[in-house]
Amino acid sequence: MTIPVWLSFRTSLVVVESLTFRSPEGGTGRDGRAAGWEYGPMIIDCHGHYTTAPPAHQQFRDAQLARLDDPSRPAPVPARISDDEIRETIENNQLKLARERGTDLTIFSPRASSMGHHLGDQASATEWARRCNDLIHRVTGLFPDAFAGVCQLPQVAGEPVDDCVKELERSVTELGFVGANLNPDPSGGHWTSPPLTDEYWFPLYAKMSELGVPAMIHVSTSCNPAAHTLGAHYLNADTTAFMQLVSGDLFTRFGDLKFVIPHGGGAVPYHWGRYHGLVTREKYRPIADNVMRNVFFDTCVYHQPGIDLLTSVIDPDNILFASEMLGAVRGNNPDGDFSWDDTKRYVDASALSDADRSKVYELNTRRVYPRLDARLKAAGK
Amino acid sequence: MTIPVWLSFRTSLVVVESLTFRSPEGGTGRDGRAAGWEYGPMIIDCHGHYTTAPPAHQQFRDAQLARLDDPSRPAPVPARISDDEIRETIENNQLKLARERGTDLTIFSPRASSMGHHLGDQASATEWARRCNDLIHRVTGLFPDAFAGVCQLPQVAGEPVDDCVKELERSVTELGFVGANLNPDPSGGHWTSPPLTDEYWFPLYAKMSELGVPAMIHVSTSCNPAAHTLGAHYLNADTTAFMQLVSGDLFTRFGDLKFVIPHGGGAVPYHWGRYHGLVTREKYRPIADNVMRNVFFDTCVYHQPGIDLLTSVIDPDNILFASEMLGAVRGNNPDGDFSWDDTKRYVDASALSDADRSKVYELNTRRVYPRLDARLKAAGK
Repeated sequence: MTIPVWLSFRTSLVVVESLTFRSPEGGTGRDGRAAGWEYGPMIIDCHGHYTTAPPAHQQFRDAQLARLDDPSRPAPVPARISDDEIRETIENNQLKLARERGTDLTIFSPRASSMGHHLGDQASATEWARRCNDLIHRVTGLFPDAFAGVCQLPQVAGEPVDDCVKELERSVTELGFVGANLNPDPSGGHWTSPPLTDEYWFPLYAKMSELGVPAMIHVSTSCNPAAHTLGAHYLNADTTAFMQLVSGDLFTRFGDLKFVIPHGGGAVPYHWGRYHGLVTREKYRPIADNVMRNVFFDTCVYHQPGIDLLTSVIDPDNILFASEMLGAVRGNNPDGDFSWDDTKRYVDASALSDADRSKVYELNTRRVYPRLDARLKAAGK
Repeated sequence: MTIPVWLSFRTSLVVVESLTFRSPEGGTGRDGRAAGWEYGPMIIDCHGHYTTAPPAHQQFRDAQLARLDDPSRPAPVPARISDDEIRETIENNQLKLARERGTDLTIFSPRASSMGHHLGDQASATEWARRCNDLIHRVTGLFPDAFAGVCQLPQVAGEPVDDCVKELERSVTELGFVGANLNPDPSGGHWTSPPLTDEYWFPLYAKMSELGVPAMIHVSTSCNPAAHTLGAHYLNADTTAFMQLVSGDLFTRFGDLKFVIPHGGGAVPYHWGRYHGLVTREKYRPIADNVMRNVFFDTCVYHQPGIDLLTSVIDPDNILFASEMLGAVRGNNPDGDFSWDDTKRYVDASALSDADRSKVYELNTRRVYPRLDARLKAAGK
């Protein structure tokens, strides 16, 4: 067990014979079984984005897209970003908040809104995905205990997923990533791609199954003026993807495939009765058997009543802790003295049992991301 | 006061000096202040559809669309539907359930999924809307105490709303309707129309304001294979429309305009914290001032936890009782002995105070639909 490294990050706990003790107040003492300490799970946030990447990264992208519009422009120069720049953008943002809130490890991916699958062509999408994933790899290299990588796929609406399969394999086998973000609408708000149950996606699912990695279903920016990216398109995609899975039988074919639907599952838990009623009416297979062995919702719901609904309606085995941090909603709730996206606060205050809370914080995520679990086990965690 | 007619429908209550007494168990006795009776509001369901129209109605539509594909076909003959057929389809379905559940009046509109704004041209859309609205008018004529009409608009994506303005005026002034259904995406799932805050829609809003009628924001069938009509498109439209309004300032211009967002507001109440966080981040005007003076959510959420969330998060002044009956979800919950869409059961069991429950069941709806209120008042209700 590499306890010293581990403890340097997990400032508020000690590991004793593989049991973890934590101060419920998040205190910084390390004196083990002192009063006020109790058993607690590792806290894994399954949904973080590198939204604070150094500006040179986006500048490369801008130059790349400008050249697609005007081929007479020079080829864009790859961004030069130092390790110190990466450290600074992480330590002062995601890692600072993670430490304050008690998150131990974040599953980290490129900025979702910048994936921009509706822009450019296959070659530019592939190059951009590689650069984004390489940047995430540098983060996970600099902070190996605090972050695990999830890759952006070079999707282009209407194009086959061949390059996605290659980039997924490279990200997992060469960069050590533990999952992917899969965009169900690479058109950016016009929904021109077939449902996730369509064979169009199957080569990607086959590779995911082979590699043992899940995908988070996550769209990028909406280029449709009707659908606000953060306030409509993201949530609609979650809802849409879930219903595609409910009305299909994808997991009969890909039994080991696992999807995480972010943002608390979009509208789904709030309308849980509607989905069950539709299943009855349409004679679909029961959701529990047909979908919920393979599909998980994260906890990116930014108020207590929402988390209470999620945790009371959805089986705790299907909920993964996440904050989307730094994501759609930043800054403090003016009615309280805490950040909207401090979802740990809501999960802690929910009516989950300690056993179920451990599933949400740690155990489910280790089950859904087996490559992360293997790495943690290898490190004695 | 036309008490006899009124009592013939409201079987479980009596009207005494304009106070209403109701059995909490929904008993059928009419002996007034007997034990077990208590004061209760009128129950108005603001969201019902004529999903059980006689088949000849849809056959006309099918013939109309077939002729658009093949102009050599004969002009479709208007459906011949007898009063008895209408009575039978209403009394054995919507009215039967309304009586069983204790609903007094339903705000009733043509089948939403059959509006089909993505099919045909302006002329066919206009004719179809007129026939649908005329059929609703026959229902309200046969059952004047049980139904109030809401019209379908002859929307066509990309076409101006001129015909919609005309049909709205006809429906309100000639047919006595009290509102309209407004489709924010007449393309049927590709979202090609501008946001509801765009001036494209303003002629319709001007007419709505002039007539004093609200609109329910309600899409029709999805022709997009990615988006299931009932399990994704409907909810996405609710979410999308709300965010359009949050990010705009439509009600600064149209201060009296009122929208009802159905299906419990889509994903919105579940993500109430997200919306408030987005407003803070994007420096939009506060939702309470900018939107919630003019926007209302219905109670078409088909399980108790969903209604509990809705009624705890959204101001009771902004919630209107509705069942969508007979709508997306029919049949009984196999885990209980009641219909999924018996939303009165959930509203009754929610933590709303009696005063707030009266708002949800009656008072808010009379405020949002002033033409209905005027009619009820004229009838002494």
